[in-house]
Amino acid sequence: MTETTNDIWRLYGRPFSSRLLIGSALYPSPQVMCEAIRASGAEIVTVSLRRQSPEQGGGSAFWEQLKGLNKTLLPNTAGCHSVKEAVTLAQMSRELFETDWLKLEVVGDDYNLQPDPLGTVEAAEQLIKLGFKVFPYCTDDLVICQRLRDVGCEVLMPWGSPIGTGRGLMNPYNLQTIRERLPDMPLIVDAGIGKPSHAVQAMELGYDGILLNTAVAQASAPVVMAEAFRAALLAGRLARLAGAMPERQTAAPSTPTLGMPFWHQQ
Amino acid sequence: MTETTNDIWRLYGRPFSSRLLIGSALYPSPQVMCEAIRASGAEIVTVSLRRQSPEQGGGSAFWEQLKGLNKTLLPNTAGCHSVKEAVTLAQMSRELFETDWLKLEVVGDDYNLQPDPLGTVEAAEQLIKLGFKVFPYCTDDLVICQRLRDVGCEVLMPWGSPIGTGRGLMNPYNLQTIRERLPDMPLIVDAGIGKPSHAVQAMELGYDGILLNTAVAQASAPVVMAEAFRAALLAGRLARLAGAMPERQTAAPSTPTLGMPFWHQQ
Amino acid sequence: MTETTNDIWRLYGRPFSSRLLIGSALYPSPQVMCEAIRASGAEIVTVSLRRQSPEQGGGSAFWEQLKGLNKTLLPNTAGCHSVKEAVTLAQMSRELFETDWLKLEVVGDDYNLQPDPLGTVEAAEQLIKLGFKVFPYCTDDLVICQRLRDVGCEVLMPWGSPIGTGRGLMNPYNLQTIRERLPDMPLIVDAGIGKPSHAVQAMELGYDGILLNTAVAQASAPVVMAEAFRAALLAGRLARLAGAMPERQTAAPSTPTLGMPFWHQQ
Amino acid sequence: MTETTNDIWRLYGRPFSSRLLIGSALYPSPQVMCEAIRASGAEIVTVSLRRQSPEQGGGSAFWEQLKGLNKTLLPNTAGCHSVKEAVTLAQMSRELFETDWLKLEVVGDDYNLQPDPLGTVEAAEQLIKLGFKVFPYCTDDLVICQRLRDVGCEVLMPWGSPIGTGRGLMNPYNLQTIRERLPDMPLIVDAGIGKPSHAVQAMELGYDGILLNTAVAQASAPVVMAEAFRAALLAGRLARLAGAMPERQTAAPSTPTLGMPFWHQQ
Repeated sequence: MTETTNDIWRLYGRPFSSRLLIGSALYPSPQVMCEAIRASGAEIVTVSLRRQSPEQGGGSAFWEQLKGLNKTLLPNTAGCHSVKEAVTLAQMSRELFETDWLKLEVVGDDYNLQPDPLGTVEAAEQLIKLGFKVFPYCTDDLVICQRLRDVGCEVLMPWGSPIGTGRGLMNPYNLQTIRERLPDMPLIVDAGIGKPSHAVQAMELGYDGILLNTAVAQASAPVVMAEAFRAALLAGRLARLAGAMPERQTAAPSTPTLGMPFWHQQ
Repeated sequence: MTETTNDIWRLYGRPFSSRLLIGSALYPSPQVMCEAIRASGAEIVTVSLRRQSPEQGGGSAFWEQLKGLNKTLLPNTAGCHSVKEAVTLAQMSRELFETDWLKLEVVGDDYNLQPDPLGTVEAAEQLIKLGFKVFPYCTDDLVICQRLRDVGCEVLMPWGSPIGTGRGLMNPYNLQTIRERLPDMPLIVDAGIGKPSHAVQAMELGYDGILLNTAVAQASAPVVMAEAFRAALLAGRLARLAGAMPERQTAAPSTPTLGMPFWHQQ
Repeated sequence: MTETTNDIWRLYGRPFSSRLLIGSALYPSPQVMCEAIRASGAEIVTVSLRRQSPEQGGGSAFWEQLKGLNKTLLPNTAGCHSVKEAVTLAQMSRELFETDWLKLEVVGDDYNLQPDPLGTVEAAEQLIKLGFKVFPYCTDDLVICQRLRDVGCEVLMPWGSPIGTGRGLMNPYNLQTIRERLPDMPLIVDAGIGKPSHAVQAMELGYDGILLNTAVAQASAPVVMAEAFRAALLAGRLARLAGAMPERQTAAPSTPTLGMPFWHQQ
Repeated sequence: MTETTNDIWRLYGRPFSSRLLIGSALYPSPQVMCEAIRASGAEIVTVSLRRQSPEQGGGSAFWEQLKGLNKTLLPNTAGCHSVKEAVTLAQMSRELFETDWLKLEVVGDDYNLQPDPLGTVEAAEQLIKLGFKVFPYCTDDLVICQRLRDVGCEVLMPWGSPIGTGRGLMNPYNLQTIRERLPDMPLIVDAGIGKPSHAVQAMELGYDGILLNTAVAQASAPVVMAEAFRAALLAGRLARLAGAMPERQTAAPSTPTLGMPFWHQQ
C-alpha cells in the first residue's frame, strides 16, 4: 500500500509511520503486553513512573521487557491531581526514563477522571519552560486547546470520552471543531476509544493519531485486538486521504439506466 | 496476520477470504474501476445486466475488463419493481453471465429505493425453485429475514441505510437483533455504507461481510478508498474475533496504583 | 391556548382533541390506572380481550372501572401469532366490546415481539372486508405502510422501538420517510416510547399521535407521568405547527451588534 | 396539575414557578417579542446592554415594552471577549437595569462562540466580589463548573451546543455527569436548544431550567413555539418527578397472559 509507505507524520520533529500510541497497563501479563504492543505496530508506548519505577524490584522484569521492545517511551503523569505534583513527577520521569517527552495528565475530578483544564494549561506552561516536550491530555474544548498551543504545546490530545469507558467519541462535533480551527496541529484522540470503529471515526474526522490502552489490554484476546487497531488506523487514515462521499438525505441508485454507456453516467 | 489467513467464510458452499463484495457502477472510468476493485481485495463483484449486457457495443470494453479481473460475478436485478420483472431479468442474467448466483433486488418505493419485503420473499421463493443461489437485498426486518431463510436463502443482505445515502447503520439495534436471532446465517450489510467506520461497526456487530459500491466509486480517490475498506474489513473482523471490552458508564483509570506489582492489578 | 382548542384530528371519521392513546395494562392497581388515564387526557384506551374479558370474575371490577372512564375503547389482538388467531380474536372483541375499532397486532417473533409484516397486511385485508376499522401496529417500513393503506387502513401505527423497551425512536429516518411519503395519512407512533422527550420528538417529525402504555404504567409515579405525557403531546404538536428553526452547523450569536436598531437585525 | 402548583425553585434566593428563561433578541418585531414572552410563561428575560441601552432613541420603544412585561431582567455580557470588557459592561448594566443579576458571557472563540473557560471563572470571581449575582454561561465541563461554584456562583448554565445552532444536547453524558456531581446546584441548559424535545430531554436528565432565545424568536410562528416550550418545560419537569421506566435491551409485552388477574401481573 504505497499511500502509507510515505505517510510519515511528526511529533516534536521526530518522524513516525504508525499513528497508534499505546499504553502499557492492565494487560493480563507482561508477555501479553509485549506481544500486543508488537502486533499493534505502535512506535510510541506510554509508561507510568508511579506505577513501575525501573528500580523497583517487582517492576524490573516489566521494565526490561519494555526496553526490549525498542519503542519510543512517553512517560505520563497519571494520577496527579495538582500542577505541583505533575511537575515533580515529570522531572523524576525525565531522569529515570531519559526522555524529555511527557504525556501530561492533571486529574480534575475523581469521578470522571477528566483533565483539569486550568491545571493542565498551567502545568504545560511550566514544563515547557523546563524543556519538556509536552503531550497534554485535555478535554475536547477548543479554547483550552488554543491555550495549550499558545503556551508551546506542539501536539494536543483531547479525549474521546472518559478514560476506561470505551464509549468512543461522545462529542464528534467538538472534535471536528478543534480539527477545523487548528488545521496544522497534530491532534491525537486520547481516552475513551473502546473499539476499532471508534478509532476509524476519529481518523475520518482528520485526527492524526490515537492513544489507547484499555481497549487492547482488556479485550478477550489482546493480541488480536492490537492487530485490529493496527488495521483500523490504516483504514481511517486512508479514508481521510481518499475523501469520503458526502452523506445524502435521499436514496440514489448505484446502478445507472439501461443502455447508457458506462462512462457517461454521473 | 495469522488470524485472517485461515479466516475463511462460505457463501453457498464456496469459500472466500475477503469479506468485501463490491459493485461495478459509478466509477469515473473503467480503468479506475479495475484498479479500485483490485485494491479492495474483493473476490465478488456485482454486475447489472440492465446496465451493461456483454453483447452491447459500448459495454464490451467494460465487460472485457471485468472478466480480466477474474472475480466471482454476482449479477443483480437492480431497478426491477415487480416479482415478474426480477425473475425474468434473473434468467437472462444467468444465461449471459453463466452463473446461478443472483443478488435479488425488488424495489418497493422510488423515493427511498427500499426493497419490497413481500415481493422480495416471493421472488426469492420462485428463483430458488428455478435453481438460483439467491442473495436477497432486504430491509433490516427480522421477520422478513426469517421468511427469506425459510424459502431457501443461504445468505441475507439487510440494508444499513437507503442506497447511495452513505448514512451508515441507521438502525444498529435491528441489525444486532437479526444477528442474535440468526446466529449461523451468513449476514452481509448491503447499501448505505459511506465510510470505513460504518463497515467496521457492522463487522463488530458480528456481520460476516459488507457489500458496497458508491462509497468507493464516488470517493475523491476511489483506489485509495478501496484500500481503506480493505483494511476496515480486516479491522472489523479481527475486532469481532478479539472480543471488545464492555462499554462502561463511569471512568476507570488505566494506570494502577503506585507500588503495586504490575501483574496483580485487576 | 387557542391553537389547541381547535386542533381536532379524525380517526375513521371520529374527531378527537387529545393525541394520546393509552393502554390499560401493567398499572400497579386499577385505581392507579383510572387516575393515570384521566390525568393523561387520552380519549382512546386500548384493551385486550385476552387479558380481561368482561365476563371473567377477576376482570369485572377492572371492566366496570374502565367503562366508568367513558373513553373510546380500542380492543387489540395482542399476543396473536397468526392471521387466523387475530381474526378470530377480533371478532370476539367486536362482540364483547361492542365496537368495530381494532388495534391489529400479529406477532412475528417472540424475541423482539415485532409485528409480522406479511401477516399484518393479510389480516388487515380480511378484517376490513369484515367491516372492521383497523389500526395496524406495524414496523417503520414504508412499503408495508403503503400496502396497509392499499388494503383499506385509514390510520397507521409504526413502532418507535420494540414494545416495552422504552428506547424511543430507534430509526427517526424511517419514520420521517413514512411521514413525507404519506402526507395525508393519520400516523401514530406505537410502542417503544419510554419518556416524554420521545413523544415530543415524534410529534415534531409530524406524527399525529402517540400510543403508549408501559411508560406511564411503570413509571415510579404513573399519574404524574401521565400528566407529563399530556403536556408532552401538546408541546410536540405545537412545535410542529410553529415550525422549528433549522439546525445549523455553526454558531450564530443571538445578540446582535451594538447600536443597531432592534428591528433591523436579521 | 397540582404537582406544578407548588413546584417552586429558587435562584439566588428568589422563587420562581416557570423553569424557562428567555432571550429578547432576534424576534420579527417588538410586538411579537412581547407576545412570545408572555406565551412562554417565562418569568426571567435576558437583555443585552450592548444591543439596546435604555437611553438610545431606537431602543426606547423596545425598552418600554420590555418593562411593561413585568419580568425579572437578567442582563448579559454577550459579545465580550475579555474579563475586563465583561466586568465593565456588567457594571454599566447594573446601573442601567437596576439589578445585580448578571448572565456572564466571555466569548472564547469567534467560530463556535463558546465560553472561555478560564476567562469565565476569572470574571465570575471578580464580579461576585463586586456584589453581582452571577449566572455563568459555561461549557459542559464538570471541573469548570466546580470552579465556578467555588468562586461563589449559585447557579450554573452549561451549554447544550453552540449558540444559535439548535443542535440540542450534543453531549448528554457530560451534562448528566455534572448533574450527578453537583446534585444541589441549580443547573440551567443555556444555548443550543432548537426544539421542545431538546428541552424535555434536558429536564428529564434532571436539569432545573432552560435558557433559550433563537428557538422561539426564529420559529415560523414564535408565539406558538413559545407555548410549545411552555408545555415542554412542564412535561420535562413532571417526567423527572415521575421517575421514568428504565430503558430495556429486549422487548417485553405490555399485555399480560390470558386469564391472570390484572393486579397480579408484574
